[in-house]
Amino acid sequence: MVNETQHTCSASSSSRSDGGSSSGSESSKDNSRCSTPVLDADRHERLREKMRRRQDAGDKWFSLEFFPPRTANAAVNLISRFDRMGAGGPLFIDVTWHPAGDPGSDKETSSMIIANTAVNYCGLETILHMTCCSQTKDDITGHLQKAKRLGLKNIMALRGDPAGEEWEEEVDGFNYAVDLVKHIRNEFDDYFDICVAGYPKGHPEAESYEADLRHLKDKVFAGADFIITQLFFRPETFLKFMKDCQAIGITCPIIPGIFPIQGYHSLRQLVKLSKLEVPQEIKDVIEPIKDNDAAIRNYGVELAVSMCRQLLDSGMVHGLHFYTLNREVATTEVLKRLGIWKEDPRRPLPWAVSAHPKRRVEDVRPIFWASRPKSYIYRTQEWDDFPNGRWGNSSSPAFGELKDYYLFYLKSKSPREELLKMWGEELTGEESVFEVFTCYITGEPNRNGYKVTCMPWNDDPLATETNLLKDQLEKVNRRGILTINSQPNINGKPSTDPIVGWGPSGGYVFQKAYLEFFTSSEIVTALLKVLKKYELRVNYHIVNVKGQNITNAPDLQPNAVTWGIFPGREIIQPTVVDPVSFLSWKDEAFALWIEQWAKLYEEESPSRMIIQYIHDNYYLVNLVDNDFPLENCLWQVVEDTFELLN
Amino acid sequence: MVNETQHTCSASSSSRSDGGSSSGSESSKDNSRCSTPVLDADRHERLREKMRRRQDAGDKWFSLEFFPPRTANAAVNLISRFDRMGAGGPLFIDVTWHPAGDPGSDKETSSMIIANTAVNYCGLETILHMTCCSQTKDDITGHLQKAKRLGLKNIMALRGDPAGEEWEEEVDGFNYAVDLVKHIRNEFDDYFDICVAGYPKGHPEAESYEADLRHLKDKVFAGADFIITQLFFRPETFLKFMKDCQAIGITCPIIPGIFPIQGYHSLRQLVKLSKLEVPQEIKDVIEPIKDNDAAIRNYGVELAVSMCRQLLDSGMVHGLHFYTLNREVATTEVLKRLGIWKEDPRRPLPWAVSAHPKRRVEDVRPIFWASRPKSYIYRTQEWDDFPNGRWGNSSSPAFGELKDYYLFYLKSKSPREELLKMWGEELTGEESVFEVFTCYITGEPNRNGYKVTCMPWNDDPLATETNLLKDQLEKVNRRGILTINSQPNINGKPSTDPIVGWGPSGGYVFQKAYLEFFTSSEIVTALLKVLKKYELRVNYHIVNVKGQNITNAPDLQPNAVTWGIFPGREIIQPTVVDPVSFLSWKDEAFALWIEQWAKLYEEESPSRMIIQYIHDNYYLVNLVDNDFPLENCLWQVVEDTFELLN
Repeated sequence: MVNETQHTCSASSSSRSDGGSSSGSESSKDNSRCSTPVLDADRHERLREKMRRRQDAGDKWFSLEFFPPRTANAAVNLISRFDRMGAGGPLFIDVTWHPAGDPGSDKETSSMIIANTAVNYCGLETILHMTCCSQTKDDITGHLQKAKRLGLKNIMALRGDPAGEEWEEEVDGFNYAVDLVKHIRNEFDDYFDICVAGYPKGHPEAESYEADLRHLKDKVFAGADFIITQLFFRPETFLKFMKDCQAIGITCPIIPGIFPIQGYHSLRQLVKLSKLEVPQEIKDVIEPIKDNDAAIRNYGVELAVSMCRQLLDSGMVHGLHFYTLNREVATTEVLKRLGIWKEDPRRPLPWAVSAHPKRRVEDVRPIFWASRPKSYIYRTQEWDDFPNGRWGNSSSPAFGELKDYYLFYLKSKSPREELLKMWGEELTGEESVFEVFTCYITGEPNRNGYKVTCMPWNDDPLATETNLLKDQLEKVNRRGILTINSQPNINGKPSTDPIVGWGPSGGYVFQKAYLEFFTSSEIVTALLKVLKKYELRVNYHIVNVKGQNITNAPDLQPNAVTWGIFPGREIIQPTVVDPVSFLSWKDEAFALWIEQWAKLYEEESPSRMIIQYIHDNYYLVNLVDNDFPLENCLWQVVEDTFELLN
Repeated sequence: MVNETQHTCSASSSSRSDGGSSSGSESSKDNSRCSTPVLDADRHERLREKMRRRQDAGDKWFSLEFFPPRTANAAVNLISRFDRMGAGGPLFIDVTWHPAGDPGSDKETSSMIIANTAVNYCGLETILHMTCCSQTKDDITGHLQKAKRLGLKNIMALRGDPAGEEWEEEVDGFNYAVDLVKHIRNEFDDYFDICVAGYPKGHPEAESYEADLRHLKDKVFAGADFIITQLFFRPETFLKFMKDCQAIGITCPIIPGIFPIQGYHSLRQLVKLSKLEVPQEIKDVIEPIKDNDAAIRNYGVELAVSMCRQLLDSGMVHGLHFYTLNREVATTEVLKRLGIWKEDPRRPLPWAVSAHPKRRVEDVRPIFWASRPKSYIYRTQEWDDFPNGRWGNSSSPAFGELKDYYLFYLKSKSPREELLKMWGEELTGEESVFEVFTCYITGEPNRNGYKVTCMPWNDDPLATETNLLKDQLEKVNRRGILTINSQPNINGKPSTDPIVGWGPSGGYVFQKAYLEFFTSSEIVTALLKVLKKYELRVNYHIVNVKGQNITNAPDLQPNAVTWGIFPGREIIQPTVVDPVSFLSWKDEAFALWIEQWAKLYEEESPSRMIIQYIHDNYYLVNLVDNDFPLENCLWQVVEDTFELLN
C-alpha cells in the first residue's frame, strides 16, 4: 500500500521517475502523466494473463471448442449459439481449422471468419486453430497476418493431418507443430498467445509416450503459452500426464479437454479420428443403450460431471476445455451441474462490447444501434480509433455503407415463412402494421394466432428494461407511433441493479428517457406543435427517408442518455444521442422496412405497397427527456399530440 | 428549423456533403464527423462576434479601461480589482500602452504582462493597446508575436504621442495608426481583432473634423473591427459624431468612451492631455466644490449616469466603454445605477476559466487547486493541450516547477504585518496553529482580536459552499485535522443553484464529498485503521513532504468529484481527484507552510520551528466519499479516528 512517488507511476511513464519531493520535471512537452486504464482488466489482459489471474484468485473456469459450420444458415445459428453459450462466461472459445474447407478465406463459413465473428461481434476471447503441414510459409504468414488484422490474438498451433496416407517430411516445410510455434514467434514476436495440443495417452504416431512428452516440451520451449489436451476417458489419465509433464519441466498451464459423450455415433467417429480406445467400462454401459440417444446423453453428462469433479478436486486443474461438437445442451448441463456456468447479469457497459484489441478503449456509442450491436460493429469496423470518454471528441470516420449489410450474420434468424406468420401474410393497411408492432410489444398472439418475437429493428423479444415501459408502448403503437427503441429514465440506481445496472459494483447508473419511433407526417405535424411547449426539456430529431431533418439540438452536440458514476473513476457515459450518426442510422432504419419486410411480398402486391408507402412517407423520430429526475414527460408529449389530432 | 442532411453538417465537414439518403461516404479514414463545440459560445467567439451577438440580442454591455501600475504591489492590487470588476460582467477590458514604461517587457508592471494576467489568470477578454510612432517595424512585430503567444487576441492600434514637441513623419516608419492596422493585417492576417480610436470632436492635431473622420474611415477600411472614442462631455457630441461616421460609410461598431469625473485634479490632467475643453456648465458646478472630493465624485457619477442613459436611449449605442483611471467605486456605481453591472452567480464551470485561446476546450481540472486557480494556470501554462471531457486521456506535460512561484500576482495580497496579526506573532505549539485554522473557519477573531481572513492555501475568506460544512470543519480543525479544501456531496441540484450551481440552466449538478487536510502521523495511523472499514466507499491519498504515498485508488485512475448533466449535452466533469497531479500539488501545499508562514518569523525562532516541524512531519490527506447519494460519511471517518485515539 505504501508507494514512493517514483514508483507509483514508473511502470507507465519514465519522465516522472525523478519524482520524490520536487514538483515533477520541468515543463517538458513529453507526456509525463500516466494514461488511464479503462473500465475492465478483462478488456486489456491477454488470454494467458487472464488465465493466470483466474488461477491466482482460485477461480475455476471453462472454455468451449467449436468447428466451422458447412452452410451460411448453420453459421447464423452457430453465432446465436456463441451468444447464448457466451452468456455462461467461458474464458475463451476456440474454432477449429479445416484445411479442406478453405479455412483462411472470406467465406461466411471459414474458420477465419467464424473466429472473427466470435471476437468482434460476440465479444468472446477466441483462439483460432491453425495447422501447418502441407502449407507454404507464405500461406501461413498470410493467414496469421489476416488473423491479426481481424483482431484475433490467440492461435492454437497444430501440425494437422497429412493429406495422403503416407506422410513424408518436407525439407524446409512445416513438418511439426513446433515449426509453426517457432514461425509465429519469429514473425510476430509476442503478439499472439500460442496454445499447443497435448496427448494424455501420447500422440498416436509418436514413437513412445515419453518421446511425445519431449515433443510437447519442445513446443512449449519454442514459445507456446499453454496446452490443451486431447480428450481422454479417465481422470487419472490426465493427472498422470500432468505430473509427467511437470517432471520434465513443463510448467505452463495444461487444460484438460473434456468430451461429454452425446451419442453413440459421434463417439465412434471421434474415437476413430483420434485413434483412442474407449475403456471397457464405458463400452459396457453404452452398447446396450446405443439406440437410445437420450439415455446415452444422460450417461455422458453424468460421466463428464464425475470426471470433471475429480479433476477439479485434485487441486491441479483450474480450467476445463469442452469439445462441444457445436452442440449446446450436454455441455451446458455439465457446466451448470459443476456450478461453473455463471450467467452474470452484470455488464461492463450497457451494450455488448467487442473483443477486438483496437476497440479496447471504446466506451461510448450512439443509442440507435442498441438492439443491433453487431450492425454497429460491422459499420464501424474500419475505424482506427473509437470514442472514449466522450463522443464528440473522437475523430471517427464515416459509418460503413449498407451495401452488403444483409449478408450472413446480420440477417434475421427466422426464415421467410415464419416472418410472414408474424408480420402478416397479407396487410390490409397501415393499421395492420400498427397491429404487428403492438403484438411485438404485448407478447400477445396476432390475429392469426402467432406471437411476434422479432421485428426488422430487433431480432430478439423485448428487452427486460423495455418491459418497464410496456403499457405505455402498447398504447402508442396501437395509434401509429411505431416504436423501435426506448429506455426509461433512471435517477441513480445501484450499478448492480439486475435490470438497468452495468459497470463495476458500488456505482450508480442514470438514464434520460428515450423514445424512438416511426410515424406519419400528420402525427409529426401535431407533435411539432406540442414540442414547442417542451422546448427546454425535450430534445428531438425528426427525419424522413430523404434526409429532411428537424431538430432543436444545439450545435449538433451529442446528448448523453446513459451514464454511470463509480467509486474512484471518471464518469462513464456509454450511450449518446448523436445528431450526426442519427443520419447514418436513419438510412439503416428505413432500409430495414424494405429489405426485411416489404421484400417478403410480391412486387406490386398491396402488402408490399403498404410497407413501401410507410418507408417513403413516414418520419423517424427520436425524443429525449432531459429532466431525468422528474417523471418521464415523453408519454405526455405523445398524449398531447393525440389530443391535438382529435 | 428544417435542414437538409447535407446542410446540417457541411459547415464543419465536407466529406458528408454527399449525404442525402445514402449512408454517408464509404468507410473513409477521414474525419467525417463534425467535431463538438464545447460548453460556451463565449469561450469560442472572437470579441467582434460577441459584440455582434450582444447587439443582435438587444443586450447592453460595458467595457473597462485600465493603465499599467507603477509598482509590483500596485500590480497585485490591480489584479484583485480585475477579479472584482470582472464579476460585473464587462464584455472586455483594455490595458493602455506606455512607451516610456517598457510596455512589451516581462516586468510585472508592463502593459504586456498586465494584459496577459487579465486574459490568462482572470479569464477576461482583453484588448492590449499598442502605439507605433517612433518604433521599428521589427519591434512592433516582436510585440505582436509576443501578444499572440500569450493568448492575447485583440489590439487597440494607436499612433501614440511623439517623443519630442515637434513631430516629423518618418520615411518607412509608422507615422499613423492606420500604418499599424495595415501592418497587423499584413503580418497576422485575421488573427487579431483590431480596435481604433475615434475622436468625437476630431483629433486635436487634425486639420479639421472632416479630415479626421476621413482618417478614421481609412483605419476602418485598412482592417479595424470597431472604434472606441475619446471621452466627451455631452451625449450629443457622440451622437453627431456617430451619424457623421455613418454618413461617410463607417459601419463598424462605435463605442463611446465614458469618463466619470472622479476628482478635480484628475479631470484637469486628463483634459490637458487630451486637449479637450470642459463645457462651461460643468465647470460652473465643479469649481465651487473643487476641494470636496466626495461631492465631485457624486456629481461625476450623476453626470455619467445621465449621459449614458441618453446614449442608450438613443437606440444607437449598445455598449459603453469606461475610463476607470484604475479606480473602482465611481465606475461600479454608474454601472449599477444603469443596471448593466451584472453579477451573474452562474459560472460556466465550477472554477474560473482562463481566456487563452488554447485553453478553450479545457473543462477538467484537479480539485486541489480549487482555491488557487491562478497557480494552476501558472503551473500549466506550458501545456499545449488541455484535458477535455476526461482527465485521463489528455497527454499533458508535467506541472511547472515552483521556483519563481511566489513572484508577483501569486503572492499574498496581505502585507507581513497583517499576516502576523492573523496567524500569530508568536506560536507556542502545534495547538496555536490549530487555532489559526479554526478561526479562519469560524470567522471569529483570534486571541489577539484579529480575524483570520486568509490562509497560505486560500487567499480569500471561506467560500459560500464551504460554509455549508462550517460546523463540522470547526470541530475537526480544533483537534488537529487542518483542513485546506472541502466540498459537500450534492445529489442533483439544479445547475442554477446560487451556491453550488454552474453551467447552462436546465441542468443538474452533482458532487462527491471531498475533504483535504494536513494532520500528524499519529492521527494518520489511526485514520488508516478506520479507513479499512470504509474501504469500498472512501478513496484516500495520504502523502508526506518526502513523497511517501499511501492510497487505495485503483490503477492511479482519476476520480470525478464534480459533474453536471445538461439538456442536449454530453456529461461534463470539471473536477477530479487525480492521483498523479496530487503529487505535484503536494509539493506546492507543503511549500506554502514555509514560504508564506514560517518565513514570517526569524530563523531559529520557536514559531518558525513549529511550522517547520509541521512541514517536515505532517501528512497531506485527501478523502473522497464515493457514495454521493448517501449522507457524507467523511465526518464519521474523522469521528471514528478521534475515538480510536482516545
